[in-house]
Amino acid sequence: MTKQFDKEMAEVNALLLKMAALVEEMIESAINSLFERSKDSALEVYNKEGKVNALQVQIDEKCINILALQQPAAIDLRMIMSVMKINSDLERMGDQAINIAGSSLELLKDKPVIIISDLKKMGISIKLMVRQSIESFITSDLEKAKMVLLEEKEVDLIKGKILQELLKVMADSPWLIKPSLVFILVSRNLERIADHTTNIAEDVIFIVTGRDIRHHIQDINK
Amino acid sequence: MTKQFDKEMAEVNALLLKMAALVEEMIESAINSLFERSKDSALEVYNKEGKVNALQVQIDEKCINILALQQPAAIDLRMIMSVMKINSDLERMGDQAINIAGSSLELLKDKPVIIISDLKKMGISIKLMVRQSIESFITSDLEKAKMVLLEEKEVDLIKGKILQELLKVMADSPWLIKPSLVFILVSRNLERIADHTTNIAEDVIFIVTGRDIRHHIQDINK
Repeated sequence: MTKQFDKEMAEVNALLLKMAALVEEMIESAINSLFERSKDSALEVYNKEGKVNALQVQIDEKCINILALQQPAAIDLRMIMSVMKINSDLERMGDQAINIAGSSLELLKDKPVIIISDLKKMGISIKLMVRQSIESFITSDLEKAKMVLLEEKEVDLIKGKILQELLKVMADSPWLIKPSLVFILVSRNLERIADHTTNIAEDVIFIVTGRDIRHHIQDINK
Repeated sequence: MTKQFDKEMAEVNALLLKMAALVEEMIESAINSLFERSKDSALEVYNKEGKVNALQVQIDEKCINILALQQPAAIDLRMIMSVMKINSDLERMGDQAINIAGSSLELLKDKPVIIISDLKKMGISIKLMVRQSIESFITSDLEKAKMVLLEEKEVDLIKGKILQELLKVMADSPWLIKPSLVFILVSRNLERIADHTTNIAEDVIFIVTGRDIRHHIQDINK
């Protein structure tokens, strides 16, 4: 491909890394706001939303411009498509961080309650998956991308346990129904963040190996 | 653009319409499985998942091939990008239908419970939004697309009401905690379907008017 293409892709990648860093911070702050009952952390999440949204539009525009003007083919084209997908996943991860921050603010209206240890465990796993998925993209690290896919299965198991535990809490202690429900919804938000990290990991695997492993349909159209 | 491009885009659009019809059926069956306690309807949703996933991959592949071989510019390029986004939204709508069908099967294990009227209302609204968003795409109907965006605000209000109602049910009738929680999660699934219909509506507005109204950042990079 041309030097111009490489130069423009480097610019896009720089923007994407900036966005990834911001989204990672949003998720860290969101989890922190919940576990530490920190209003400041929740507000930090909201403060970053606008920047992330602006970056998403900017990256999309740049990619479309590159497509229109450089008309890349084959692997370069696939790379741009993957960048656009990762862009969308990052923005959606930011949306989930906003939801969690909103839940934290909601909980701050009431008295503190104990957070079950599995939810804390899930939060830690998610932060790791976010980190690894972004790193796997930056360094084209296939092994790290595969680790993200394995961790998703773990997270799925913890999510099921959290649901069972909190159903029991609600039945035993009706005054804990509202916070328990909020924690269940947060576990869904965390699960969706995990889904997006696996999308990113799949895109990295796709870029590196040139294969589409989504839905395990590897051979369609060949 | 070339005749070849028009021919290939017509093929892609035909696949996308096929997929949209399947996803619409999935959502109808999912809502039906919940409201009518129909195991058959739930299983129909699962039966269609594989087809929808295969179509998604096929449409993506075709779009990438068109990009690589036809190298479309300007409005044609934007059109393909929007088709790829709609493709992704449709598949995610199917995922939500699967979640709802799963919840229906879960509820079938227990005795029937009364479904609050607001959830039924939300289900009807969502089916309408799905229909309108798909029709707005098929017929490039700007007005229909705008209606979808207005309806989303309504759906958001109903969702909040459902949450309050069900929190009260759980507090008053602890034996209804589990089904109430399932209904809250279903209302979130329906909300996400609504989000995807608004994404499609925004893409239609973008295609028709050439403007990006996401995040209300219209003038970035200009």
